Amino acid sequence: MFWEKEFETLRRKDLEKLQVDRLKKTINQAMESPFYKELYAAKGITAERISDVKDIRELPFTTKQDLRNHFPYGFLTQPKKEIIRLHSSSGTTGNPTVIFHNRHDIASWANLMARSLFCAGIRDTDVFQNICGYGLFTGGLGFQYGIERLGCLSIPAGAGNSLRQIKLMRDYGTTAIHAIPSYLGRLYEVFQAEGLDPRKDTDLRIFVIGAEPHTEEQRRRIEEMFGVKAYNSFGLSEMNGPGVAFECTEQAGLHIWEDAYLIEILDPETLEPVPDGEFGELVMTTLDRQAMPLIRYRTRDLTRIIPEPCACGRTHARIDRIAGRSDDMFIIKGCNVFPMQVEGVLLRIPEVGSDYRITLEEINGADEMIVEVEVKKDWFNGDIARLEKLTRVITSQIRDEVLAKPIVRLVEPGAIPKGKGKAVRVIDKRKQIATQIQTT
Amino acid sequence: MFWEKEFETLRRKDLEKLQVDRLKKTINQAMESPFYKELYAAKGITAERISDVKDIRELPFTTKQDLRNHFPYGFLTQPKKEIIRLHSSSGTTGNPTVIFHNRHDIASWANLMARSLFCAGIRDTDVFQNICGYGLFTGGLGFQYGIERLGCLSIPAGAGNSLRQIKLMRDYGTTAIHAIPSYLGRLYEVFQAEGLDPRKDTDLRIFVIGAEPHTEEQRRRIEEMFGVKAYNSFGLSEMNGPGVAFECTEQAGLHIWEDAYLIEILDPETLEPVPDGEFGELVMTTLDRQAMPLIRYRTRDLTRIIPEPCACGRTHARIDRIAGRSDDMFIIKGCNVFPMQVEGVLLRIPEVGSDYRITLEEINGADEMIVEVEVKKDWFNGDIARLEKLTRVITSQIRDEVLAKPIVRLVEPGAIPKGKGKAVRVIDKRKQIATQIQTT
Repeated sequence: MFWEKEFETLRRKDLEKLQVDRLKKTINQAMESPFYKELYAAKGITAERISDVKDIRELPFTTKQDLRNHFPYGFLTQPKKEIIRLHSSSGTTGNPTVIFHNRHDIASWANLMARSLFCAGIRDTDVFQNICGYGLFTGGLGFQYGIERLGCLSIPAGAGNSLRQIKLMRDYGTTAIHAIPSYLGRLYEVFQAEGLDPRKDTDLRIFVIGAEPHTEEQRRRIEEMFGVKAYNSFGLSEMNGPGVAFECTEQAGLHIWEDAYLIEILDPETLEPVPDGEFGELVMTTLDRQAMPLIRYRTRDLTRIIPEPCACGRTHARIDRIAGRSDDMFIIKGCNVFPMQVEGVLLRIPEVGSDYRITLEEINGADEMIVEVEVKKDWFNGDIARLEKLTRVITSQIRDEVLAKPIVRLVEPGAIPKGKGKAVRVIDKRKQIATQIQTT
Repeated sequence: MFWEKEFETLRRKDLEKLQVDRLKKTINQAMESPFYKELYAAKGITAERISDVKDIRELPFTTKQDLRNHFPYGFLTQPKKEIIRLHSSSGTTGNPTVIFHNRHDIASWANLMARSLFCAGIRDTDVFQNICGYGLFTGGLGFQYGIERLGCLSIPAGAGNSLRQIKLMRDYGTTAIHAIPSYLGRLYEVFQAEGLDPRKDTDLRIFVIGAEPHTEEQRRRIEEMFGVKAYNSFGLSEMNGPGVAFECTEQAGLHIWEDAYLIEILDPETLEPVPDGEFGELVMTTLDRQAMPLIRYRTRDLTRIIPEPCACGRTHARIDRIAGRSDDMFIIKGCNVFPMQVEGVLLRIPEVGSDYRITLEEINGADEMIVEVEVKKDWFNGDIARLEKLTRVITSQIRDEVLAKPIVRLVEPGAIPKGKGKAVRVIDKRKQIATQIQTT
């Protein structure tokens, strides 16, 4: 079952041919923008130089800094009159990143979103509750337009207010939910506090989770708690937002829509392609965006191509779950550490509760990684020896994973402050001004 | 200049003919729902009985209580599969009111919204910042779809965070804004605090204000502060949300889209039609909604038809600004009072600041109306006599307007708590449990 069989199951050869055609079109379109016009003129780049997808390697990269430097209209290829929406990053100072969409772009995005949801088994008979912020954040309107395009009954619930979310689910028989994974753990706690069991007291069957890194263990835990299938969604606002790559019902990697995006996986240091199957930085080129095409955009997300064909029949490449970001990585005691690695360890330990936080701090002249870990509710029974034993277990397993020894501190459930949006996992106090690394 | 000249300028005779056709269709459609099926069968009502718009008077009314009693699907005419969105009132207990829309309904609503914005002088060259909550509140998605349908550059800003709102306006050259009127006063204060003048430091030219009652004085004050034209918008979620009636550039009443809504103005006591020009309760029938038609829905909003034809050339009736609601009205010392009346008085007094609050309370065995009034910033210079004089002026002017003598208390600017959404204007402490009358 496909949303658009003719595109989703294109033979690789034909898909590449389509990509070359669309890439040439995209280059011509991009050259209508001040940024690419100047850049490509200086380098003598024209669409004629492209006759194979590999030829994209001759083109220069585009970075988030380029977007900021040429804010707001440097990448715009059309008069403002043609544009019908912008999404921009938040903040009240400095240049945000902004993406402009014309009517074609919004329709194309909605279609990709519908294709993504269909691919995860969602149908027009589903009742889809979109639990995420609307407004400038792309998860709200991005999903909304896709849900409606697919023909589900959409409930534009927005973020927060778990009691109300549960009431909506029960009032309207919600079968599918989009939310960030860390929220779902909290939501389950509210179900429990209300004496409700989502397996019996709701019609939930499918979750779509994204916008926040999470591990396979976390996904499985969510599936068990709610008795649903949870599918990974990947997107980034520079590439519209959600609807870039999505898991099919095989749950074995995320199909990235190659008729809309040309992807490369590059070694983040050498910027040369890595072999299929190896991890590297995802670099993306829009192939179906008119108002603001981006060519060889460095996403900073680390993933790999899953080389085998997918059992579902879709020919579009699958990427693995995002293994981290160059920006997320921190160095402690000389080791490169991704927060995801720590999270993966914690999720395998049954005594561990729903939240953790990493603080990097200078203690007695040495940099230390402090990992605060919430224990499960009612686990601590006053037995200090039990606390110490669990602390030792966590310490050694994290050290085995990241090679640096952490200072582990067990805390009560709920002791780690929970924000409304994405969880802040790492606080680096080693710099003069504490910076928060928000994992994306 | 019209969005849909063929509909907006229909001769009254032809408009009525269209209404009769659509009303018959609507009755047939409505009878697919459990509620109307039973109701109309019991009363022997069929579409055949309608040959003139006046024949609608033979049909029974529909009330908010009917919607609640037949929650959630009693008014639904189609299988859930056909529905692509719901909007529902908030709350975590009791039955909310919910409206279901199919694909046709969403497209029709977006078109009415685009027509409304066009009618207020907004064009596809405008940059439109939608400052209101998204999600289940109809103002967010309702405006969003209309702005995009019209072809403006939409900024889905959401509510709150005034500094960020101002940055968005300045970054992208916002020319048009939708917001609730009470927010705009606060926004202006933030402009001032930042040393900015919206007249010089922005490209703003049009405001659309609604979702909250306000007076002509308040509108004029907003226009002066920002150097813009402010147009009134009227809608209610049971009739989709925004896009029901809108001011044209004549600013002389709101055109109510009679090809989509059949309207009646009835005496709220006798439920008989009042003559054109006289105030009564607005009763509405959807003429272009498929999933959930509502017939003779009692809005509880008090308004009147403005009888003269409009200079703009649109033939659709104009309604006057909403003069209050049966639900809003309170009785004090035997007088019927609408909060709007008090507001109207306060806005004519130059020393008065941006907020006020009415508290109804038993004092020494007598019911009293306490009106707290914020004075303008820097107005109070320590001169007690000045305070007393202003208090006397306000007291007597309110008494002249509502016929009951209030207790007026002047307070510092900012002293009245400001919520995020609609301003709470009346607190009635006379009942055992304090109820908040939220003016809608």
